[in-house]
Amino acid sequence: MACRHRHFIAAGLAFALGTGGASADDSIHRYRAEHERQILSDFRDFLSLPNVASSTPDMMANAAWIERYIAKRGFTSQIVAEGGAPYVIAERKQPGASQTILIYAHFDGQPAEPRNWSSPPFEPTLRDGPVELAGATINWESLTTINPEWRIFARSAGDDKAPVIALMAALDAMEAAGDVPSVNIKLILDGEEEAGSPTLDNILQKHADKLTADLMLFCDGPMHQSRMRQLVFGVRGTMTVDLTAYGPARPLHSGHYGGWAPNPSEQLMRLLASMKDDDGRIIIPGYLDDVHPPTAAEQQAISTLPNMDTALKDELFLSKTEGGGKRVEEISMGPSIIVKGFEGGGVGKQSRNIIMPSATASVNLRLAPGQTPERVIARLNQFFSDQGFTLYSKPPTPEERAVSSALYVDWRPGGYRAYRSDLGSAEAQKLVSILNRFDGKETLLTPTMGGSLPIYLFEDTFPKMPIIILPIANHDNNQHGRNENLRIQNLWDAIDVYAAVLLEYGKP
Amino acid sequence: MACRHRHFIAAGLAFALGTGGASADDSIHRYRAEHERQILSDFRDFLSLPNVASSTPDMMANAAWIERYIAKRGFTSQIVAEGGAPYVIAERKQPGASQTILIYAHFDGQPAEPRNWSSPPFEPTLRDGPVELAGATINWESLTTINPEWRIFARSAGDDKAPVIALMAALDAMEAAGDVPSVNIKLILDGEEEAGSPTLDNILQKHADKLTADLMLFCDGPMHQSRMRQLVFGVRGTMTVDLTAYGPARPLHSGHYGGWAPNPSEQLMRLLASMKDDDGRIIIPGYLDDVHPPTAAEQQAISTLPNMDTALKDELFLSKTEGGGKRVEEISMGPSIIVKGFEGGGVGKQSRNIIMPSATASVNLRLAPGQTPERVIARLNQFFSDQGFTLYSKPPTPEERAVSSALYVDWRPGGYRAYRSDLGSAEAQKLVSILNRFDGKETLLTPTMGGSLPIYLFEDTFPKMPIIILPIANHDNNQHGRNENLRIQNLWDAIDVYAAVLLEYGKP
Repeated sequence: MACRHRHFIAAGLAFALGTGGASADDSIHRYRAEHERQILSDFRDFLSLPNVASSTPDMMANAAWIERYIAKRGFTSQIVAEGGAPYVIAERKQPGASQTILIYAHFDGQPAEPRNWSSPPFEPTLRDGPVELAGATINWESLTTINPEWRIFARSAGDDKAPVIALMAALDAMEAAGDVPSVNIKLILDGEEEAGSPTLDNILQKHADKLTADLMLFCDGPMHQSRMRQLVFGVRGTMTVDLTAYGPARPLHSGHYGGWAPNPSEQLMRLLASMKDDDGRIIIPGYLDDVHPPTAAEQQAISTLPNMDTALKDELFLSKTEGGGKRVEEISMGPSIIVKGFEGGGVGKQSRNIIMPSATASVNLRLAPGQTPERVIARLNQFFSDQGFTLYSKPPTPEERAVSSALYVDWRPGGYRAYRSDLGSAEAQKLVSILNRFDGKETLLTPTMGGSLPIYLFEDTFPKMPIIILPIANHDNNQHGRNENLRIQNLWDAIDVYAAVLLEYGKP
Repeated sequence: MACRHRHFIAAGLAFALGTGGASADDSIHRYRAEHERQILSDFRDFLSLPNVASSTPDMMANAAWIERYIAKRGFTSQIVAEGGAPYVIAERKQPGASQTILIYAHFDGQPAEPRNWSSPPFEPTLRDGPVELAGATINWESLTTINPEWRIFARSAGDDKAPVIALMAALDAMEAAGDVPSVNIKLILDGEEEAGSPTLDNILQKHADKLTADLMLFCDGPMHQSRMRQLVFGVRGTMTVDLTAYGPARPLHSGHYGGWAPNPSEQLMRLLASMKDDDGRIIIPGYLDDVHPPTAAEQQAISTLPNMDTALKDELFLSKTEGGGKRVEEISMGPSIIVKGFEGGGVGKQSRNIIMPSATASVNLRLAPGQTPERVIARLNQFFSDQGFTLYSKPPTPEERAVSSALYVDWRPGGYRAYRSDLGSAEAQKLVSILNRFDGKETLLTPTMGGSLPIYLFEDTFPKMPIIILPIANHDNNQHGRNENLRIQNLWDAIDVYAAVLLEYGKP
């Protein structure tokens, strides 16, 4: 424990020097300071690889890059696949260690529309601040010192390529200092998380023996909006459904037929608008019946989290929020329905005076504990029927469309239920203790995050293994959107955090 | 009148031979039959020229093509512009003629999205039927006989490049037969009709002296769905407004913030859905107060038109119509509001799990007599305010968005009011008489079409000149949409009709 005292002092120095980040072992800090450009250069290389899960060649290139990168840190690995994108499964045995930590991260990203980005999504770009605050581009070639408030912009910078980089940098730093991890390390790196990890179930069935561990850390998701470190004990489930309504069999002139021909865009908008009230609360009959309310311990944990609602509203220039004034952490305890896309004709110069033959909306459903995909499908299908639609699980024929108001309900693959683990478990306490001790700063305990991770599959496969989420990305990383980014201080802090956990968790 | 008898016989023969079209002067028919390939080839050339009004170079190329083409038929012309797309103004004087007919057509087209078309919009393609009925492509190079049920597919095939071709073919046919028009002919060919003819007002102010006439024929719009010939005595007005609602200043993860951050797509859909009831009837308070109801004569005229609703529903594979069961001609007598486009995230593989910073809808308003653009703007702005939005006429700043629910209301230029002329005027009677006489078939008298033409400007400039619409395109021409087309029989019929009018209208 003696060495821990050094850390507290180092933490104080770090604050005095204004780096603003968490501190850790001096040697970790020193190594990072001396290798910042190399670490960023590795990250840049990794982010340069396009990584939409539907492109198998791209994902194989990413997996190969990872294998080369982690092999240098003593990992044995294999690329495995079950008909979808590849996964990387790896292990680094530590002589003498009796405990094993399994780490999850994913290396695929959401599809990106380059025209919406300020710099190409697969040409990592440094800026001295967020794009929204007119952050100026920093030239990679003329880097001297690196300001930790700068950000690196690329698809998957925030979600979720950074953990691999930070973890390997932590191992490099430990090795440079002559330290060793206190645990064996196993990795499962997912190449299709943004596509809903459709083959993860089969991957786990086939490779469970290589993934057994005493604790699983899910390294994904954003940190708390206060920038405080947090551990997260649950996720919402997620499902996506694409709904298509139908109008005339061919495009019709909006003048000659407007008001007479049913407009599929308007039909669909009416249906979507009827799912929630003006305040955004779900009003689909029975939909909330399956939801488990938060436990007393969870409610207590939320009440002790810093309330970021006002700051968030300011940062996002919001005049109001939905959900009846509940804070964002409370909203995340329940289900949400989000219309995330709509296709039914262009706007502005792309608009045409026609009534389209069809209109499609893409709807994301976030599930709370108690909801299952099967029940959600049943509830929603019933609701759509009650609104007067005849449902089809494949596009209806013109003849079917002529009979009644047809709705093509396309439940996208890869949806899954929520997950919650116990805030008070021994493993959680141990992890909290390590994190709070290494820099003297409190770790927030968040009952759930609003986002989704396929944790339930690990729960099914390894029912006794505690699963805790350890996020490292800045909350404002624009994940899934244009101009996704990682704040560099978050990468430096992640190196410290991973090093602390690997050094301490296996100690008696 | 003797020669007319020949025509009736020819008409009968045409039916007996199954061409299904109107017949006319033998000499006109013979000329057309001998020159079908040449006429189609000219049409193909004309349709090959891209013609979106916003591209001035493209529109100048179209105008130049027209000038060359009509000069061969004795027209003097000039290309004029008032800061927008070009117009072609032309005249063909007929020695001895005391009457003048002014003919309007337009040569620009709606924007086309090639990826939605079965063949490129500016590579005219012959098919043996509609795309929707799997019409097979006919090779241009191996044409021998031409089936009049074939169609030519290209942007503006139906709307509205055909009149220029048919009119010149009619003059060619008359000349070949040694006939001459009974009238002087003036042309105004509009290069920006699909953009709302924003500079037509100035064009008319400057060039009114070259456009005076005894009768104006508006050659645009589709024929009656029964394929019967019709004259149309009015149009609806048209306006377009683009509405943008706002959410967070940057894209947000739909999981972490779904249910808490206002979703601009959903806000906008709720607003749009609140404008009409489930049956598509406008329920905006006061919106219908300005509308003039149809006259008794107009109601009578509608009741005598063939009722095409059932056939149309069958053809379009519609299970129902909007508007409380009123027939399409009745609906066209009143105003309509059509959501024609929406931009707020992708669907299917393009969907991403985000809440967008903004969503935009494009809404087309069709105006009935009595409504003015100024009043419509006032009524709708009041409605949007009443729904809780603060309105902006330019995109609001983030600071403005933070104060209240902002709605950017972008009234697009070029909107205009409806037009109606007298069903019973002497000029109308004369025209009907010529048309009914030349092939013995009844001409339908339609009080208004649902679509819009900028006729009110001609009404303002030439208040005494009767203005009547003479459509030639098949009703199922997909105008404004993908796979726009003209049925070839409609082109042949147009040549007959124009020839009959030009030969007869100026006769005492």
